[in-house]
Amino acid sequence: MIIQLDKEITPARKETVLRNIADLGYKSMDVHTQFSEYLVCVGKKEFDIRIIGQLPGVADVHRVSDDFKLVSRKWKVRPTEIDLGDEVKIRRGEVALMAGPCSIESERQVEGLADHLLANGVKIMRGGVFKPRSSPYSFRGMGLEGLRMFAEICRSRGIKIITEVMDAAQIDAMYPFVDIFQVGARNAQNFTLLDGLGKVDKPVLIKRGMSGTLEELLQAAEYVFSNGNEKIILCERGIRTYEQAYRNTLDLNAVPILKDKTHLPVVVDPSHGVGIRQYVASMALAAVMAGADGLLLEVHDTPEKAASDGQQTLNFEEAENLYLKVRAAADLLRG
Amino acid sequence: MIIQLDKEITPARKETVLRNIADLGYKSMDVHTQFSEYLVCVGKKEFDIRIIGQLPGVADVHRVSDDFKLVSRKWKVRPTEIDLGDEVKIRRGEVALMAGPCSIESERQVEGLADHLLANGVKIMRGGVFKPRSSPYSFRGMGLEGLRMFAEICRSRGIKIITEVMDAAQIDAMYPFVDIFQVGARNAQNFTLLDGLGKVDKPVLIKRGMSGTLEELLQAAEYVFSNGNEKIILCERGIRTYEQAYRNTLDLNAVPILKDKTHLPVVVDPSHGVGIRQYVASMALAAVMAGADGLLLEVHDTPEKAASDGQQTLNFEEAENLYLKVRAAADLLRG
Amino acid sequence: MIIQLDKEITPARKETVLRNIADLGYKSMDVHTQFSEYLVCVGKKEFDIRIIGQLPGVADVHRVSDDFKLVSRKWKVRPTEIDLGDEVKIRRGEVALMAGPCSIESERQVEGLADHLLANGVKIMRGGVFKPRSSPYSFRGMGLEGLRMFAEICRSRGIKIITEVMDAAQIDAMYPFVDIFQVGARNAQNFTLLDGLGKVDKPVLIKRGMSGTLEELLQAAEYVFSNGNEKIILCERGIRTYEQAYRNTLDLNAVPILKDKTHLPVVVDPSHGVGIRQYVASMALAAVMAGADGLLLEVHDTPEKAASDGQQTLNFEEAENLYLKVRAAADLLRG
Amino acid sequence: MIIQLDKEITPARKETVLRNIADLGYKSMDVHTQFSEYLVCVGKKEFDIRIIGQLPGVADVHRVSDDFKLVSRKWKVRPTEIDLGDEVKIRRGEVALMAGPCSIESERQVEGLADHLLANGVKIMRGGVFKPRSSPYSFRGMGLEGLRMFAEICRSRGIKIITEVMDAAQIDAMYPFVDIFQVGARNAQNFTLLDGLGKVDKPVLIKRGMSGTLEELLQAAEYVFSNGNEKIILCERGIRTYEQAYRNTLDLNAVPILKDKTHLPVVVDPSHGVGIRQYVASMALAAVMAGADGLLLEVHDTPEKAASDGQQTLNFEEAENLYLKVRAAADLLRG
Repeated sequence: MIIQLDKEITPARKETVLRNIADLGYKSMDVHTQFSEYLVCVGKKEFDIRIIGQLPGVADVHRVSDDFKLVSRKWKVRPTEIDLGDEVKIRRGEVALMAGPCSIESERQVEGLADHLLANGVKIMRGGVFKPRSSPYSFRGMGLEGLRMFAEICRSRGIKIITEVMDAAQIDAMYPFVDIFQVGARNAQNFTLLDGLGKVDKPVLIKRGMSGTLEELLQAAEYVFSNGNEKIILCERGIRTYEQAYRNTLDLNAVPILKDKTHLPVVVDPSHGVGIRQYVASMALAAVMAGADGLLLEVHDTPEKAASDGQQTLNFEEAENLYLKVRAAADLLRG
Repeated sequence: MIIQLDKEITPARKETVLRNIADLGYKSMDVHTQFSEYLVCVGKKEFDIRIIGQLPGVADVHRVSDDFKLVSRKWKVRPTEIDLGDEVKIRRGEVALMAGPCSIESERQVEGLADHLLANGVKIMRGGVFKPRSSPYSFRGMGLEGLRMFAEICRSRGIKIITEVMDAAQIDAMYPFVDIFQVGARNAQNFTLLDGLGKVDKPVLIKRGMSGTLEELLQAAEYVFSNGNEKIILCERGIRTYEQAYRNTLDLNAVPILKDKTHLPVVVDPSHGVGIRQYVASMALAAVMAGADGLLLEVHDTPEKAASDGQQTLNFEEAENLYLKVRAAADLLRG
Repeated sequence: MIIQLDKEITPARKETVLRNIADLGYKSMDVHTQFSEYLVCVGKKEFDIRIIGQLPGVADVHRVSDDFKLVSRKWKVRPTEIDLGDEVKIRRGEVALMAGPCSIESERQVEGLADHLLANGVKIMRGGVFKPRSSPYSFRGMGLEGLRMFAEICRSRGIKIITEVMDAAQIDAMYPFVDIFQVGARNAQNFTLLDGLGKVDKPVLIKRGMSGTLEELLQAAEYVFSNGNEKIILCERGIRTYEQAYRNTLDLNAVPILKDKTHLPVVVDPSHGVGIRQYVASMALAAVMAGADGLLLEVHDTPEKAASDGQQTLNFEEAENLYLKVRAAADLLRG
Repeated sequence: MIIQLDKEITPARKETVLRNIADLGYKSMDVHTQFSEYLVCVGKKEFDIRIIGQLPGVADVHRVSDDFKLVSRKWKVRPTEIDLGDEVKIRRGEVALMAGPCSIESERQVEGLADHLLANGVKIMRGGVFKPRSSPYSFRGMGLEGLRMFAEICRSRGIKIITEVMDAAQIDAMYPFVDIFQVGARNAQNFTLLDGLGKVDKPVLIKRGMSGTLEELLQAAEYVFSNGNEKIILCERGIRTYEQAYRNTLDLNAVPILKDKTHLPVVVDPSHGVGIRQYVASMALAAVMAGADGLLLEVHDTPEKAASDGQQTLNFEEAENLYLKVRAAADLLRG
């Protein structure tokens, strides 16, 4: 059960609500977000939910039988809209494009990419400065210095930034420079990180784990929401299967199903998803038709020379062609 | 190495070609199909392929390093077109619709479906009469009698038929009534069946195994081709993964990759692929954008009452909406 | 519900039993095996099972809620024992060794192996004459001629034979020479083949499919049993997973669970299971401790020269060491 | 290439070694551990390794072509032995038992378990105080207070402690109370955590990720080693597959293969591995025969009442029976 409280509920009224919950034998957890205050209640007894609904100070009350609650569409049918400011939004009915390199490498690189994005009307740039790498001997990214440079160039051009955070301890230092915090597939169940991101007021994009179930992805989002942050985006990025013909198996089934289960926007990363450059465009278009609310695309001026893995990265021309087709597909779908 | 021989090659010239192959230490296999005669040669020695190419009676010669050879696009770049007669074709650049019930149940049912298809310009009807069922106690289909009835109704309306064959011993009896033989996922490596289907002159649609690799699917097609039948269609139908949120994981990555590797048409079965009715349309549209040359769709007038599993089956109205969107998506993709 | 009928039940009494079943709204299927006659009944109504149990001619009656019924341990607690004659048995409490080459290659090879087995007290020889191969261009086995030779050599030495049958049409021709019919992983859901093997009176070993569930394996066995053959052995042989460090992922979890669910013996094939020679012995011993009632082992006098894949094949010395350790482990487990 | 330096190498000699590496076009990384100093060198040029080997100050030099290097058995054949003090060791040729509850719940519980372990000669107790939970609303463990109590009770009885650390920020506070830091499956690629554990001088047990490859597990260990900590234990704990008959698929194939690839000890967690109480003992014994150097077992005085999941937890009597059988199996294997 989710109880949404009035914004200005008095302490006495809240006390009464809590007492009623306790009397029912339910446990409740108090959740304050940027937007509202909720009581998430867990218990087993059957009762008439209107008992709670009619209490003064209660704005709304819903039963939610799923294990994930605040992110469930059973409670909130209206889709969540992520507002990044300056008219940049991620929301249902549109396909937000987020493009850029795997790793931030240099000022020259970022400037070139920013120009490319501006010229094509793409308003969000992706780029890693902390890179999770299987091997300790691989390039681990430019770090905070790189992020500062990345942010400076993008802000001066009105471009928003999405970048990966690998550890709760990095959140504060990254905060001033980031528009969307990205949680990578390897951290999809790093609960300390998710708790931490629930305490900041910036959007969080959570990638599905390498073998993460949709239920686990929704639970990861529940961690962020229940810590106080409603600004969450879910991302399908390919799962592990027995098939070795591609690097990951992009699972587009996840898109319609997640959109059915949650009010959060759902985006797709076809670059990591299939992991082979020549197939990225087909999978990106398929993702749009499956209902994706946005795409994360790897783009580089010279993919062959990318500091990190360039096997799945489009060059400018390929990316430009794809942006056009994606928009046409989005138009078609919107009807 | 694949050597395509002249249609009218003389025995003496063929003898010379074979001697040359033997001299190189290569083994060759003679393949006669509806359309041509080939020598598929396997060996290790490096040599100038023109030695073979210039021999009288040799139409063409290609190196093919893949384990699958005759179905490879390395040898034959021009896409294979499946001609079912009466202007019904399955080929690249179009999206052939094949719709119908999981199981053929009754005359009334088939007639209703045939009318539905005709009204919507769908020219191929799917429907099972031999059903592979996990349990020996489940309904196993109407059998040959059902097939005869199915064929009669469809032929009188100019509709083509695709139905599953489960065993090599059924081929002859089914032959007069079938337009496309379907090999189900459970038989994707039933080599006796594939050998048998290589010996008839009717198209064969091969579904990917439940955990079949793309390589195995191509090898299954190689069985059919090397036995003499070039009329082959490949079908993605969902694979087994750890995820339990849907019945199978429809793997659309397979579409662009298969189309890159083979000259055969590639179709998708989103009904079995995701296995849940409300998500079938999204996955069907995504399949089209991924490049599918056709779709297999489960449709029934009353899915709730279907003799076999109706969980993934669309009703007529849902199907009609989908046909329209599929055609619009196909138009968009064709540009 | 499974009703076991008296061996000599009169037609009138059987009629009464069937009428009672029909009156309950249950459907029944008549199953005659080598050993007994059963009625497998499926329905939903709750009723006192003693109504059936007290009818004249009924030997026993059991509720079985699983989808598989005749193979369930809920019905028959006493383990099934496979008697191959000449004191050779496969049964719980022992570890039956079945060893031999992937493919039968020559008289010399079979004789050498037979001598090796005799010297080591191994009484069952495995060896393929019909080989399911991914590629149509690979060696497909010596066929029926090879089987005849194989049988002749083994019979003269008192060794039993297990070999793979690939198609229902082969059963009759193979019957005189085979002691155990093996159904391979690729045919684990070839229902025509399973139906066929249910009609002969020889033991059938069914391998789990490449991505077969335990439920599907038990259902495959149900096909054989419900067609009239109770002599069934189940075999774990490795499943498909994302891991590429070995060829298959031998799934020993299957052993204790299958033994809990069915009365049939459960054996393990560690050779295909892990697929790499140097790890076969460890996995074989682990299988014994997990509770395997038998082992299928690939052995060859010169694995490097094996006609089929020798990567997973032990040589005589390795095999001899393993037989000893297996027996010691079996003794330990028996207590 | 791994260069092991003399313990007392002079700065000048080290300078010469580094110059030689640079001259070869190799990059080197300096690794100081509790036991030694290494230069891990990565490059492509072929050269006579003796050029480096003969330099003063170089103790040893090895080529290692794997992506993981310091943990490879190609470099260090002699197995690593983990010494926990008081004669408690984890090492090849023995099976170290680590038993205890999923979660630490109370003083009474820990005392009861400690007595049980002492009575059975088990010297390491497992127990979680920080629990990674899929849902934010589940019990997350007793935290640091619980750990202090846990440590106090165990130390007074000479029992060692293994417990999970979930975040790099927890390491310092946990350090005084922990004997082995456990990295859970969900953190198997939390590189910040692995880096942090590389900087402390206590053993680290790394569990394989839920869909982690063996290569990734070895790379995770490489993170710890290359940060300075050689005291590492690897743990197989079940992977994700399509099979739903058990909670995870315990993958015993991993045991012989890891022991072939690394000098680190390899242990198995059959409790999480199969995840169903009645099958734990069989899988534990199988793990021993596969070559496990230790076992992690969930034990509780009343599994039905466990604070965390008790489905896979043995009671005292079941555990006692298992310890005896494990020791008998270990004796048998040692020969």
